[in-house]
Amino acid sequence: MRIKELKTLKIIGVADTTFARFDMANSVIDELNSIGTGFRIERYTVPGIKDLPVACKMLFDDRNCDMVIALGMPGPKPIDKQCAHEASMGLIQVQLLLNKHVIEVFVHEDEAEAERELVALADRRSRDHALNAFDLLFRPKALEGRAGSGVRQGGSDAGQMSSTAIKKGD
Amino acid sequence: MRIKELKTLKIIGVADTTFARFDMANSVIDELNSIGTGFRIERYTVPGIKDLPVACKMLFDDRNCDMVIALGMPGPKPIDKQCAHEASMGLIQVQLLLNKHVIEVFVHEDEAEAERELVALADRRSRDHALNAFDLLFRPKALEGRAGSGVRQGGSDAGQMSSTAIKKGD
Amino acid sequence: MRIKELKTLKIIGVADTTFARFDMANSVIDELNSIGTGFRIERYTVPGIKDLPVACKMLFDDRNCDMVIALGMPGPKPIDKQCAHEASMGLIQVQLLLNKHVIEVFVHEDEAEAERELVALADRRSRDHALNAFDLLFRPKALEGRAGSGVRQGGSDAGQMSSTAIKKGD
Amino acid sequence: MRIKELKTLKIIGVADTTFARFDMANSVIDELNSIGTGFRIERYTVPGIKDLPVACKMLFDDRNCDMVIALGMPGPKPIDKQCAHEASMGLIQVQLLLNKHVIEVFVHEDEAEAERELVALADRRSRDHALNAFDLLFRPKALEGRAGSGVRQGGSDAGQMSSTAIKKGD
Amino acid sequence: MRIKELKTLKIIGVADTTFARFDMANSVIDELNSIGTGFRIERYTVPGIKDLPVACKMLFDDRNCDMVIALGMPGPKPIDKQCAHEASMGLIQVQLLLNKHVIEVFVHEDEAEAERELVALADRRSRDHALNAFDLLFRPKALEGRAGSGVRQGGSDAGQMSSTAIKKGD
Repeated sequence: MRIKELKTLKIIGVADTTFARFDMANSVIDELNSIGTGFRIERYTVPGIKDLPVACKMLFDDRNCDMVIALGMPGPKPIDKQCAHEASMGLIQVQLLLNKHVIEVFVHEDEAEAERELVALADRRSRDHALNAFDLLFRPKALEGRAGSGVRQGGSDAGQMSSTAIKKGD
Repeated sequence: MRIKELKTLKIIGVADTTFARFDMANSVIDELNSIGTGFRIERYTVPGIKDLPVACKMLFDDRNCDMVIALGMPGPKPIDKQCAHEASMGLIQVQLLLNKHVIEVFVHEDEAEAERELVALADRRSRDHALNAFDLLFRPKALEGRAGSGVRQGGSDAGQMSSTAIKKGD
Repeated sequence: MRIKELKTLKIIGVADTTFARFDMANSVIDELNSIGTGFRIERYTVPGIKDLPVACKMLFDDRNCDMVIALGMPGPKPIDKQCAHEASMGLIQVQLLLNKHVIEVFVHEDEAEAERELVALADRRSRDHALNAFDLLFRPKALEGRAGSGVRQGGSDAGQMSSTAIKKGD
Repeated sequence: MRIKELKTLKIIGVADTTFARFDMANSVIDELNSIGTGFRIERYTVPGIKDLPVACKMLFDDRNCDMVIALGMPGPKPIDKQCAHEASMGLIQVQLLLNKHVIEVFVHEDEAEAERELVALADRRSRDHALNAFDLLFRPKALEGRAGSGVRQGGSDAGQMSSTAIKKGD
Repeated sequence: MRIKELKTLKIIGVADTTFARFDMANSVIDELNSIGTGFRIERYTVPGIKDLPVACKMLFDDRNCDMVIALGMPGPKPIDKQCAHEASMGLIQVQLLLNKHVIEVFVHEDEAEAERELVALADRRSRDHALNAFDLLFRPKALEGRAGSGVRQGGSDAGQMSSTAIKKGD
């Protein structure tokens, strides 16, 4: 690899957990590689989602990441929901401290009943957010093109609501 | 455009999401342009509402915005409410870090039953908050004139409660 | 006004909203003026309670306030309670950043059933907290004299519980 | 008092409220004086528990406290619980900003039914935490001796659970 | 001990409480010593879980810890859950301020019905997290090997969900 490429390569961090029941990082990395080039991956695995905020901060500070994708699968109990909330608050703080995006990809275990569906959801959402991350980093105008269109990562898009009924001042 | 104008032009940031099911940014920008001049718009679209805090911070730090309008449409589920709460906490932190206003315009999908009503609400609230943003930036005394008058963005105002019944020390 | 007075005058900020349905700032300012002198008022009106934290910070940083009274009337819905919570968290952060008091005066719309009662409550609580603000700024020992006495702003005091039953080690 | 003593005296802050229905500060100060010497008290009374975080910060920054005991009696309503939560979050932030302990002593009005019991609880909890504060400041190893022993301030200790049933790897 | 060893020894902090009903620190320290060498322990016991955030910060700042394990046993009541939430938020902040991990090990009293089970759970979870802490500090790649495998500290692992059903783009 030549010097010039090294300098322009973006670094995408992937922070994930041993708690998750599906290897979402694998889906993210596979998808990123299928979308484009110009980046390399730094991965950091921690025990649970509450360890993700500092893991993301370390990925930025110690490994020079330009963006981090934070992956987690909170369990179905109230305490798991609370942990996810705490992790999310921490992830927002990390972003404000660094002025960099952390794309949070959380799949709640109770989002699907059958294991097969949950796996499909986790894989799909990971891949959809990999695209969001790539776009934010390399082609932010692509997101503007999808603004207000009801995009849903991991499932069917909710779609844009018709605005034919709207007149100014309605 | 002359140098002097460039220097005095205020910059209003508009941060929105691909998750939203209505293009609220369109309503905001249209309304701002109908209210007055003296500003230009910087827009930044991110995936979801939890990406808004850092998006707003970037609009201030990297694109020199004087104020940002943050647009989102949280879904109807408990997890969506939690995400909105986390986003709001982050938006307040951004404001305290920068000493600038972020006008949060969130429309919850369960605020109206029919799609037509929800669209009308999202459009109207976006426009009403565009006026708030303009006033805060260019004529803050206008807001003082509406103080305590029960203004509601997106619907009929609740109105001011009569104070005829009040005597000092009542 | 002489130079000396200008220098020693304290500045009390009053931050309020257009959302509130009663002009609490009017009650606060009227009461402050009836209690004493030695201060002047800086007022800043914003749309809603979530705009109050940065408004208070601006009153301290840009208008040199020594204390701010933050006035709001959250609505009766769960989302309104959440907004009040977010605003309160922000107001606490402002105080810690500046080492100055923000006296939060929130009146929840569901604290009274009849409009007349709600107006009386909002007026009374605003005036009671105006006294707290004045005391904190000019005569803090007055508050120590009321310590643990069950003071309630806006209604009848709950009163101090009898300690006759207490012996050390009981 | 000699110079040397002045220099080595620790300063314990006591922050309390006019909202509380029992003078917990009195219990704390009485208990501290009965435990030992080597400290003096700085007291600051504010209206309610949400005013405690900045009061504690002022006690550290302006009055050089080495530790603060924060006293409050949240009411029984959901809004009171929320205020207590906000205050607690602020108190934790103060500690992290200063690297000093704030011992929070909150007695919820609904922890006891009869006033007599509530008073006894408030007095007892205040005294028990006065001991914690003293120990943290003057003899931290004493707390290590009570680690994991189910200490409860204000009531009977829950006690240590028997570990006879535990073998490594059980 | 030779100079070289002193310099390379890592310092693991253990912060625990007198509130907990089981001496989790004992389990953690015993387990760490059984896993490997290259570290020494600094312990700090505080009254309750809300005192843990600043205790951890002090362990980093004053005793040069490289990582801290924070141990707590929240009670079964709603107020205990709230305290745990506040403590967790504080622990995340500490990590972001220091760029160091705090491994939170909380055992809720209502996680098991019989005391015997609760003791076993507390012991097991403490030991499992001791391994996490050791791995994060000395062999982080070990965690990557367990990524997405449904690890549960204190009980049977939930296990990895089969991904045979997943095809890219499914």
